[in-house]
Amino acid sequence: MSLLVIGTVAFDAIETPFGKTDKIVGGAATYASLAASYFYDKVKIVAVVGDDFPNEEIADLNNHKINTEGLQVKQGEKSFFWSGKYHNDMNSRDTLITELNVLADFDPIIPESYQDCEYLMLGNLTPQVQQTVIKRLKNRPKLIVMDTMNFWMDIAMDDLLETIKMVDVLTINDAEARQLSGEYSLVKAARKILTMGPKYLIIKKGEHGALLFHEDHIFSAPALPLAEVFDPTGAGDTFAGGFIGYMAKVGAVNFNNMKNAIIFGSALASFCVEKFGTEKIKNLTEAEVAARVQEFVSLSSFQIA
Amino acid sequence: MSLLVIGTVAFDAIETPFGKTDKIVGGAATYASLAASYFYDKVKIVAVVGDDFPNEEIADLNNHKINTEGLQVKQGEKSFFWSGKYHNDMNSRDTLITELNVLADFDPIIPESYQDCEYLMLGNLTPQVQQTVIKRLKNRPKLIVMDTMNFWMDIAMDDLLETIKMVDVLTINDAEARQLSGEYSLVKAARKILTMGPKYLIIKKGEHGALLFHEDHIFSAPALPLAEVFDPTGAGDTFAGGFIGYMAKVGAVNFNNMKNAIIFGSALASFCVEKFGTEKIKNLTEAEVAARVQEFVSLSSFQIA
Repeated sequence: MSLLVIGTVAFDAIETPFGKTDKIVGGAATYASLAASYFYDKVKIVAVVGDDFPNEEIADLNNHKINTEGLQVKQGEKSFFWSGKYHNDMNSRDTLITELNVLADFDPIIPESYQDCEYLMLGNLTPQVQQTVIKRLKNRPKLIVMDTMNFWMDIAMDDLLETIKMVDVLTINDAEARQLSGEYSLVKAARKILTMGPKYLIIKKGEHGALLFHEDHIFSAPALPLAEVFDPTGAGDTFAGGFIGYMAKVGAVNFNNMKNAIIFGSALASFCVEKFGTEKIKNLTEAEVAARVQEFVSLSSFQIA
Repeated sequence: MSLLVIGTVAFDAIETPFGKTDKIVGGAATYASLAASYFYDKVKIVAVVGDDFPNEEIADLNNHKINTEGLQVKQGEKSFFWSGKYHNDMNSRDTLITELNVLADFDPIIPESYQDCEYLMLGNLTPQVQQTVIKRLKNRPKLIVMDTMNFWMDIAMDDLLETIKMVDVLTINDAEARQLSGEYSLVKAARKILTMGPKYLIIKKGEHGALLFHEDHIFSAPALPLAEVFDPTGAGDTFAGGFIGYMAKVGAVNFNNMKNAIIFGSALASFCVEKFGTEKIKNLTEAEVAARVQEFVSLSSFQIA
């Protein structure tokens, strides 16, 4: 039994109103696997980097008990690199540089030892690559969670729709839910998307929290109101990783467990944005995570007599 | 003991993507007093209309046990009239017509029988008029809730700040909280606004719910995800009226009661937007309100083991 995370392991250079970084380690699989590792100790990743990727960063993942056997290191090639600048409201950003490098012809090879995968996190990537991973697993995982973004809706909608059909949980933001469904109302958007394949839909609303849709049920999770969002990069990946990590821990796939998984994922994401890159979510204690989850409880609980 | 609501009683003509109305009855005091009447039976209003205002509409308020002794009817004058058109997203609107009419020189006269007021709802109006009402009450009410809007921040900021100093609870939306404080982060905005006078701040976020701030405590209330928002007019007034009506019912002014009051106010507001004008909130049963509140409970509850 294990939790397989596929996605990018990469370099980011980030500029926010609070400062800017040189190339630091990022990538969907990095954030998601780190987040998942707080709840589950059999996290494995499939990703690709170039020989410019520091060994100590791989060792850091291993220190979190993340299995990197499926992390391909391409000699003589460079890692994926993204550079972006956030606007003052932190809700929008400009992409300054995208260098695909090793990602251009990424073939997601699944090590034999990964075939025990029960939980699959498809981090944001080409839908074709996400689909290939599902097809290469001999047994269909018990839970497949897929993250994606508007970019793939713009340039690869057919592939995206085909991949969406194969997953259990789709995580997208509100604008993406509107784009994918053609509906402005998120309730109508969710109804439509739930006919496309996924049995569960999570709509991420950033500072406004998240909505979970399943059949006729809806759960509304708050976001922790923060005085400062230092760097939003990776928050969605961290959320998704925390979500599936918690699901792997509790085992039973049902609406109630997913509600909690969203709270745990949101708690991890709320740490992520407090510092640049993975700095904060690399160094959390169990007590810190538990205390943050309790903040979510007191933030949203009320008692109607 | 009573709950005094001051605000407009007026005509609106509304256009939404779902249709348009002729002149129908609206106004902050209309919505707020109707909402409050579901929780408290000693609601009294101070407002002004012209002789064009239909008697049967006043009778409708009285049927909800709303005392209209303080509703001035100006012979030979016309009621306040507002006309607006909502855009497709229902989050923004254009004002087409504003005819102040009787509102231009509104002098809020407090009938002697209203001097038992313990709860005061200052519906959105000129801050000067709101302040006059406070000053004309011989005893300071136990709880003063004030609603306002960006319009007064633009043209009467000094008056607004002076009035805000005198109230217990301020309700504004997120854009207004940012404008009033000069802070983008709502947490920082709230901290600043809580130094301006109010002990409690409610930031309304429309389809994203509401935040209640008090000292270092924050409560995040969800909004009910709706398939269709038919007409948002009056939702904020209905929320505020439901909020203070519930507070008047329970009596004790504290954070926990306010959390529930926000849920009850949100429940009423979720009804308000289902039909044009006051149509829906004029005709609710207690059972419908209770069932809607339960929807908020199941929408947002989770159980961390």
